[in-house]
Amino acid sequence: MSILQIGAGGVGWVIAHKCAQNNDVFGDITIASRNIEKCEKIIASIALRDNQKDKNAAIRVAKVDADDLDALVELIEDVKPKLVINAGPPWVNVTIMEACYRTKTSYLDTSVAADLCSPGQQVPEAYDVQWAYRERFKAAGITGILGAGFDPGVVSVFAAYGHKHLFDEIDSIDVMDVNAGDHGRKFATNFDPETNMLEIQGDSFYFENGEWHQVPCHSRMLEFDFPVVGKQKVYSMAHDEVRSMAEFIPAKRIEFWMGFSDKYLNYFNVMRDIGLLSPDPINVDGVELQPLRVLKALLPDPTSLAPGYTGKTCIGTWLQGKKDGQPRSVFIYNICDHEQAYNEVEHQAISYTTGVPAITAALLFFQNKWAEPGLYNVEQLNPDDFLELMPKIGLSWDVQELTPNA
Amino acid sequence: MSILQIGAGGVGWVIAHKCAQNNDVFGDITIASRNIEKCEKIIASIALRDNQKDKNAAIRVAKVDADDLDALVELIEDVKPKLVINAGPPWVNVTIMEACYRTKTSYLDTSVAADLCSPGQQVPEAYDVQWAYRERFKAAGITGILGAGFDPGVVSVFAAYGHKHLFDEIDSIDVMDVNAGDHGRKFATNFDPETNMLEIQGDSFYFENGEWHQVPCHSRMLEFDFPVVGKQKVYSMAHDEVRSMAEFIPAKRIEFWMGFSDKYLNYFNVMRDIGLLSPDPINVDGVELQPLRVLKALLPDPTSLAPGYTGKTCIGTWLQGKKDGQPRSVFIYNICDHEQAYNEVEHQAISYTTGVPAITAALLFFQNKWAEPGLYNVEQLNPDDFLELMPKIGLSWDVQELTPNA
Repeated sequence: MSILQIGAGGVGWVIAHKCAQNNDVFGDITIASRNIEKCEKIIASIALRDNQKDKNAAIRVAKVDADDLDALVELIEDVKPKLVINAGPPWVNVTIMEACYRTKTSYLDTSVAADLCSPGQQVPEAYDVQWAYRERFKAAGITGILGAGFDPGVVSVFAAYGHKHLFDEIDSIDVMDVNAGDHGRKFATNFDPETNMLEIQGDSFYFENGEWHQVPCHSRMLEFDFPVVGKQKVYSMAHDEVRSMAEFIPAKRIEFWMGFSDKYLNYFNVMRDIGLLSPDPINVDGVELQPLRVLKALLPDPTSLAPGYTGKTCIGTWLQGKKDGQPRSVFIYNICDHEQAYNEVEHQAISYTTGVPAITAALLFFQNKWAEPGLYNVEQLNPDDFLELMPKIGLSWDVQELTPNA
Repeated sequence: MSILQIGAGGVGWVIAHKCAQNNDVFGDITIASRNIEKCEKIIASIALRDNQKDKNAAIRVAKVDADDLDALVELIEDVKPKLVINAGPPWVNVTIMEACYRTKTSYLDTSVAADLCSPGQQVPEAYDVQWAYRERFKAAGITGILGAGFDPGVVSVFAAYGHKHLFDEIDSIDVMDVNAGDHGRKFATNFDPETNMLEIQGDSFYFENGEWHQVPCHSRMLEFDFPVVGKQKVYSMAHDEVRSMAEFIPAKRIEFWMGFSDKYLNYFNVMRDIGLLSPDPINVDGVELQPLRVLKALLPDPTSLAPGYTGKTCIGTWLQGKKDGQPRSVFIYNICDHEQAYNEVEHQAISYTTGVPAITAALLFFQNKWAEPGLYNVEQLNPDDFLELMPKIGLSWDVQELTPNA
């Protein structure tokens, strides 16, 4: 028995720790990346935190360029894993899927292949290239699990759970993502500044009455009273799971909202106003460069934020609709603490909340529960299995009944 | 008769227009710059605005590198002007003074040679290198007029006027500079962004009870009710004229204050927080560059702001003290309108208010009123001559009596 993980960034870091904590199930683990040193740092961290359950199973490293299909095929044939977990950046998804298809190996990822900011790759088309593999995966007898992070991921499982148990009819599904943590820096991004700033600048897409609506960033805001972290302003944003939920869960409106503090938005607006968030090259003393690359060089490396990060994230799914003829409003959510995550796996809550669901889904696959041949988004699979297992892997969840709007 | 102007930036632009309007006095005009095209654009603008009074006198261009002493000497010997007006950046002041000394030619400038942000060149030492020429100028029989812009410049003449006519005893001299104009851009600087941002980040120096006090930028603020432009927040800042007034006008406290809107300071603070205002190089994709140079490349060229600039500047000197045993408080000031300045000379009020005083002083020199051999800051010369002439050259002034503090 063995498992292959491709990618050794923040999410890969947590996935590796969680793989190690469950290696009595997974067997030998191979962590592959373009950068072998990153893999070795993770293995040292697993040892430091004493997170390897079965000390006899192996944890290996491998060097691979995830853009290189032949190299991926060779690696998979060499490792012969039961499952490939893709913890790389979204743009390698399709190449890894193709390599899995060719080697008849099951596949799991945590994000969508599309660049949600680029025309033709936005929310309505987000899953097109990955969903194109449905028949091939089924015919090959392998399982593909798409978007098994937190958002996308758990938030869609929450919606599936609500659809199955709590509602007869759903009016709205609002995914709400708030990081109420404090990294102690004046300004920093929690993941790659370039990706982060492009994502935040992009138009939002929401699905309503069977149609896609495209609106400018930060043009739709609401204030929501979150459990534990309190009232927060959240803004409509383009996000993968709006597309997959629109496909699989009937609702009148589906939308994703992310919390931004006034302070964060002020930094964002100033940087945008002066042109620092643009990917279009400018000439600086004879050198052509993208302002966004300069910003990336100026800001702290996101991985440097984890030690000393305090506070909590709250991510959940707000469902409104009817049950037994009565209006109902519920918020299904998780609270994750940055410090606790760091104490356990030497990383912060943003990576932790993405890594734990991936391993929860991987375990369900190894347990033959989420293991039918074919390609699935998580909301298509049995939410009860997932929500029963996830707290044991590190993330609790709860249902809060809210007062329905009159 | 002839005059030589070195520098063809914003201030040089206005100086050239005003020279041309008074070329019946100045005679032939030579505009010299590293960049001949800039000089030619100014001459075209003078023609467009019909600002050449005596059509028979010549307006010529010359190419010169103002850092090159030999080239300057050669140019001055070639042109043989009665006066050299230095409209270049402050760091060429001493080289041009030396060239004037060697060629026994009188000299006038509008700013101090020091970089007020660099240790050893801050306000207390600001004039050291230029004042070192006092004896040499006197011995050579030439006149040097230092700091003949608006601030430094007119604000010191206002103080000298107050000292001569309005006060027996001065407690405080506060130079107040507010630009209440609107250039219509989200963020822009009115002169070179690099110089501007370094200046604003620097510590402030004020003179009190015979001693220099150094305080961080934006740490001393006051709100002042300006004539015409109303209440504005102003912040203590390092500025040349605090040094020269401390030398020549007795007062218990002397300080310079500049207006910054909350919006401007917000941009400034965000840019500083993320490191964009630093002159220390960073590595962007293998290229070493100064963040400040990137900012300069991002922001609008200050010269592009003049068309469409609306609103007014208010710059003046607030004097508090005693006259005939009674407390007295006066504000002596000018109001300048961006649009009117543009209509007259195709430039905005910031450049206009610097160029007009330079030409007022130059005319007094040609009239043998401000023409004693030696080196003078403007507050050492007869303020009545200056304040009588300046309104005819384009800038009015007024005295506002304020209620003295009890």
